[in-house]
Amino acid sequence: MKIGIFDSGVGGLTVLKALREELPSVDFFYLGDTARVPYGSKSKETIQRYSLECADFLLSFGIELLVVACNTASAYALDLLRESLAIPVVGVVEPGVEYALKISKGKRIGVIGTKGTVQSAVYQNLLRERGAQPIAKACPLFVPLVEEGIVKGRIAQSVVEYYLEELKDKVDTLILACTHYPLLKETIKEFMGDVDVVDSAHAVAQKVKELARNEGNGTLKLFFTDNSPNLSHLIKLILGQEQSYETIPILCKL
Amino acid sequence: MKIGIFDSGVGGLTVLKALREELPSVDFFYLGDTARVPYGSKSKETIQRYSLECADFLLSFGIELLVVACNTASAYALDLLRESLAIPVVGVVEPGVEYALKISKGKRIGVIGTKGTVQSAVYQNLLRERGAQPIAKACPLFVPLVEEGIVKGRIAQSVVEYYLEELKDKVDTLILACTHYPLLKETIKEFMGDVDVVDSAHAVAQKVKELARNEGNGTLKLFFTDNSPNLSHLIKLILGQEQSYETIPILCKL
Repeated sequence: MKIGIFDSGVGGLTVLKALREELPSVDFFYLGDTARVPYGSKSKETIQRYSLECADFLLSFGIELLVVACNTASAYALDLLRESLAIPVVGVVEPGVEYALKISKGKRIGVIGTKGTVQSAVYQNLLRERGAQPIAKACPLFVPLVEEGIVKGRIAQSVVEYYLEELKDKVDTLILACTHYPLLKETIKEFMGDVDVVDSAHAVAQKVKELARNEGNGTLKLFFTDNSPNLSHLIKLILGQEQSYETIPILCKL
Repeated sequence: MKIGIFDSGVGGLTVLKALREELPSVDFFYLGDTARVPYGSKSKETIQRYSLECADFLLSFGIELLVVACNTASAYALDLLRESLAIPVVGVVEPGVEYALKISKGKRIGVIGTKGTVQSAVYQNLLRERGAQPIAKACPLFVPLVEEGIVKGRIAQSVVEYYLEELKDKVDTLILACTHYPLLKETIKEFMGDVDVVDSAHAVAQKVKELARNEGNGTLKLFFTDNSPNLSHLIKLILGQEQSYETIPILCKL
């Protein structure tokens, strides 16, 4: 079976890693849109266009299921992708929400993500529909912090405190609604104290496992739209091993 | 006279502002590539392609001079733009370097900018050619900090200290080689102490004044490739007044 995954950059590799652990025989095609990263601060229209372009590219390999590993794209473009494509499309929002609802005792659930994800209110609406009380907060500095490798220490701590102060003692569960955030998990837990932290990667992998067959040759093809200076280092950091990749310069259809 | 200016986003508006003060009768056309911002972390090839696309768009208005307000694009694409275009092209690097050399007493000059700008070594080479001793440092968190509005206080101070510690007491002049950085100037000065800080916007405006005629209707047209959530707020913050703009969704030529 062939599965396609796309993300605005390298963050979605955390989802890819979890998927490969659950479905080792599947053939995976990953596309990171590093030429246009980040998606989190851009408009709905632009995110939708970029998402369709990424999906089109992956469809050319004959994928039978598409995973949208980017939270912003899942928030803004999932319905559009489901309408436009003939294959199942799995986003990161629903699996994360379902898992949070399962483990949360008081149903007071925090959601942190990019501006785009939080402003779309997709997480908040879904949580409210299912009887939880969400508090959402955009943390725009978390992605650049992680990409700069600053995940512990004084600066990471002050930034975590700056954003999460207003959530502290108000939630029992916290959804990390951005694929970069798991790398800050320790510092976040340290500040938030006794709170369950939900990292969507594993929730998504469980969801995909229900829909997929563990068949194929277990291959992996990585594509990026820009060969950014830090790329091979970040791939190794997240996947835990070096991995070759191809650069495809253009996605624009219009 | 018609002058075109482009930048990866809103930062170049600081250059536009300085230009309009010097040349109030000129008709300005500004393009901010907010759909693909930032440029600073992307590869040379991608920056060159984006720069040509931005220039092409502005040329369609009949501009007679092009200002590259983005430091990363100036560092990677200036020569290519000069070869490809029939009109004069002014970047931000040379004017900033010339001004720094003029005011620096000891010729120990620091340069801070994005990863792209620093890795290109364009500033360092130019300064060395002219007999100065440059020390350069990439400060990737400064742009997101400014865009988040965090320019003073504890977090801004720790981040400034984190990057500039190794430049302190080693330079007498510091070039802010990124159009976002002037907004952090106060915090930078506070940490660096007795150092002259060079903000390229004014240096560029002086250079353009030598090449341009102050003629026209004094109009301004702003274009952005994405209508990002924070855009009108940032335009007002930098230009000091509200300003209407158009969104042009596509630039890709290939």
